[in-house]
Formats: sequence, structure tokens, C-alpha cells
Amino acid sequence: MPAGPRKSHGRRSIVATGRPRELMADSAETTGGWTARVITLFPRVFPGVLAASLTGRALETGLWRLETIDLREFGAGRHLNVDDTPAGGGAGMVLRADVLGEAVEHARRDTRHASGSWPTILLSPRGAPFTQRTAVRLSRTQGVTVICGRYEGVDQRVMDQFAIEEISFGDFIMTGGEIAAQALIDATVRLIPRVLGNQMSIESESFTHGLLEHPQYTRPVVWAGRRIPEVLLSGHHGRIERWRRVMAERLTKQRRPDLWRAYCETSGRDPEEDPEQ
Amino acid sequence: MPAGPRKSHGRRSIVATGRPRELMADSAETTGGWTARVITLFPRVFPGVLAASLTGRALETGLWRLETIDLREFGAGRHLNVDDTPAGGGAGMVLRADVLGEAVEHARRDTRHASGSWPTILLSPRGAPFTQRTAVRLSRTQGVTVICGRYEGVDQRVMDQFAIEEISFGDFIMTGGEIAAQALIDATVRLIPRVLGNQMSIESESFTHGLLEHPQYTRPVVWAGRRIPEVLLSGHHGRIERWRRVMAERLTKQRRPDLWRAYCETSGRDPEEDPEQ
Repeated sequence: MPAGPRKSHGRRSIVATGRPRELMADSAETTGGWTARVITLFPRVFPGVLAASLTGRALETGLWRLETIDLREFGAGRHLNVDDTPAGGGAGMVLRADVLGEAVEHARRDTRHASGSWPTILLSPRGAPFTQRTAVRLSRTQGVTVICGRYEGVDQRVMDQFAIEEISFGDFIMTGGEIAAQALIDATVRLIPRVLGNQMSIESESFTHGLLEHPQYTRPVVWAGRRIPEVLLSGHHGRIERWRRVMAERLTKQRRPDLWRAYCETSGRDPEEDPEQ
Repeated sequence: MPAGPRKSHGRRSIVATGRPRELMADSAETTGGWTARVITLFPRVFPGVLAASLTGRALETGLWRLETIDLREFGAGRHLNVDDTPAGGGAGMVLRADVLGEAVEHARRDTRHASGSWPTILLSPRGAPFTQRTAVRLSRTQGVTVICGRYEGVDQRVMDQFAIEEISFGDFIMTGGEIAAQALIDATVRLIPRVLGNQMSIESESFTHGLLEHPQYTRPVVWAGRRIPEVLLSGHHGRIERWRRVMAERLTKQRRPDLWRAYCETSGRDPEEDPEQ
């Protein structure tokens, strides 16, 4: 039988200073901007990097909201256990279905979940790769609930019960999902209107076009005996654009054959052709 | 002419509490464990998530070291500028070659760099994808210097001058490289001997074998009307192993055709064959 939480608990709303602001009443959460709700055993590592720079300023000015849910508060028994050994044997520990399930239900006690525009995501190397397309999609939701995995994994029944989406940040293993959660939130928040302003459209084009970005240079014109390529100093807009495109294509072909093939398919180019005009 | 730094500066060694310990003398840095040296405009966001859990305990016990270098201290002119507009025009700002170059040289004032076992890495979506293989390689170095990019990019001449390696955490855009730096450090530190102990070998096998991990279950046996698959409760080791392998293969084939093809190539399987025994 799933044990109920042993003490009162709630979602904490976080401001950019890193100190929890207050326990939020549910009614207050149905208003406001895009919200990241994070289920984690380490709520204190938030907002972390998100408190700095553009994401931090946007958090301060209320363009988005950050809430943490401490998974430990849903732990079972006197020791508030959250994990147990894997059924069938093996190393490591698995997050319990009953404990995590209660936390997910708590996160969903919110009218906005009902609308279907609030995905619940588990960060896990088994998931679909996170791309700029994922960030664009998430930035158009009302918010996301992000589960930070730990240990060997999560009981599969929670995933099935709540149709939780699995998202991966690459083919490698981290101690937990907290860093990946910050990556997901950072990449998404910067696409929210007014966070970046008009900078956004330009920067995100790099992946919209499906090419890696061309090399960049800035003053001084000569540094360590190295000079900025003449074409960039020519003032000839057409030649500069052409040079940048060729460099971007060449770099993509060389470093990322997968992106290069996809780019050639959509643009009708021959992938064997050398990226020179 | 590159401007010299306007005030004295140094590397700050960070402990798990997040407060800088002291300005380190260069001589002290030639000893000690694996070291992550981070060049960033936001040194205060470190150690961030790395202060928690296993990486935090390992930092406290000296199994690895974290040092930040504040790029702003190398800024040019009265305003300590670190960036300028892109040569040839365009949006955003580019990190200056002279400023970043000085910071990189400062980071390399260390005998251990000379040995060639201390890579300098720029985190950038243009780089080679970070994988478990990268983490294993970096864990066998003496340390890494990680440059956190910002703005539109970095002057290409710094990359060429110092033969800096570019590493990417995926096809998406983040506000800066700080979160990716923490991801790189986390994935690497947990492979350092004694950080995880014997847990390590088992967990990392998941990507060594090139398959996504099979589903996991733990107590309670029944939750929300859902039962742990019978085979996992059978106690029959051979059947459990077989079931897990089939599930891992099926999941990989379905979610990651790229990994599936690579796995079939190395294991001599037919990629069209259904993962059932």
C-alpha cells in the first residue's frame, strides 16, 4: 500500500536569488507565465545556472516561473525511502512507483495540466534526443513538469501510468537529471517572447537551417599574427553571405555527416558535392 | 594591441559549499587530483549542481578539484569588454580573441598542460557530440580547461591558435556554456576512481554495449493495478537476463535506429530481425 506523505509538503516557487519564496497556494499557480516544475531530490541546486544572465533576469521579471517539488517529502516509511532494489536483481536502486507517482500527481494538481498543454518529462538517456525543435515545442506549452532521475532508473509503471515523455541529453551517464533539467529549461526559456527580444529569431536560425554556424571573428583585425579573413572586411554583403554559407556547409559536412545528409535532402543538394560555389 | 588585465586575477578553487576557497598559488596546482578549470563570465554559478550528491561529496573529499577563471578580469579597456560585433556584420556579439586568448594562456600556466594530457575544450553546438566515450577519455586526463561560450560565438583565431577542441551537448541553443560545462564535469567526475566505487562499471556498461537500458521495476509488486512482470519475480536468472536483453534491444530498435544499426554491426546481427529469441 502506498504510504501517504508524512508531513505537509508543497511546491516551492523560486526566485533568482535561489531562496524559496514561499509555499504556493494552488489557486495562485493557475495564473502567470510559462512554468517549469521540477521534481527532484535536490531542490536546493535550483535555480543554479538559471539564476544568471538572461534566464535569471527573465525569472526576476516574471517572464517565467520555477517551482521545485522535493521528492523526499513523498518518501515512504519512517526513513522517507524513495528507492528500492531492482526487481529481478542487479546493481543500483530504482525510484519507487508509489513514491514518484504521488509526486507526479501532486505536480498535476493544477487546472492547466488538464488542457493537455503541460507535458510531464523524465530526463533519461533512454529518451528521445532533445533538439531545438523540442525547445520550440516546449516553449509553446503552458509549462512542463520535469522529473530528475537518479539511481539506476525509475519504475516503468509510473512512466506507463502517466504517459510520461522520456527525453535524453545524449549518450552518456550523469549522476542525476538535475543538470539536464537546467539545460532543458534554459533552452526553452530563451524562446519565450521578450526573454531575448529580436536576438532570438536570428540565433535559432542556425538550427532551423540545419547547418552548424560559420566561423566568427571580431576586432582586433590582427591578433597573434592572425588576420580576420579579407572577405569579412570587404563590406561586400553578397560575398560575405556566400562565404559564410560555404563555411557553414563545409563545417557541417566535415563534422556532422548526419546533419549534412538531412540538409542536402531538404535543399535538394547532392551530398557528395563539395560545398564551394 | 591586446590590453593586459587591469587588476590582479587568478584561479579560484571552489569547494562544495560554493564559496571560493582562496587564490591559489601556481605551485600548489601541480599537485592533486583530476581538475576541472572553467573559464566563464559567471564564476558564481559553480559548483552549482556539482555541489550535490556524489560529485559534491567527491569534491569535498578531494577526489577532484574545481577552479574557475573569471573571463571578465581579462576584459579590455576601462569597461573590461570581453566581446565585440561580428566582423562582416550580423547580430549578437563575439568573444574577443585577445581577451579569451589571455584567459586561456592564464589557464595553461601550469606544468601539467605541457604533458599533453590536459585538453582545452570549448562548449559549442558546432562541436563533436559528447558521449560516454568522451567522458571516459576525459576521466583519464589530468584535468580539462573548459571555456563556457556566450553570445554569437568565439573568435575563430583563438580556436586555431590553441587547437581548442569543440564539444557539443546537442543540436540546440543555450544561453551559455555553463550548464554544458557542469554536464561534462559530472559525467567525467563519476568515472574517476573511488567516486562511485564498484557501481560504476555496471552502470557504464549500458552505453558500452550500445543499447538503451531495459525497463526497471521495484517494490511494491502491485501499484495502481499494475504488476511487476512475472519473469522478474521468477528468480530464474537466465530468463531474467534474456528478458532484459530483448527489452533493451526492442527499445533501442524502436527509439534509436542509429544506435541499433551500430549495435547490429558490431554484434553481427541482422538489423531487420525482430529482437525476440
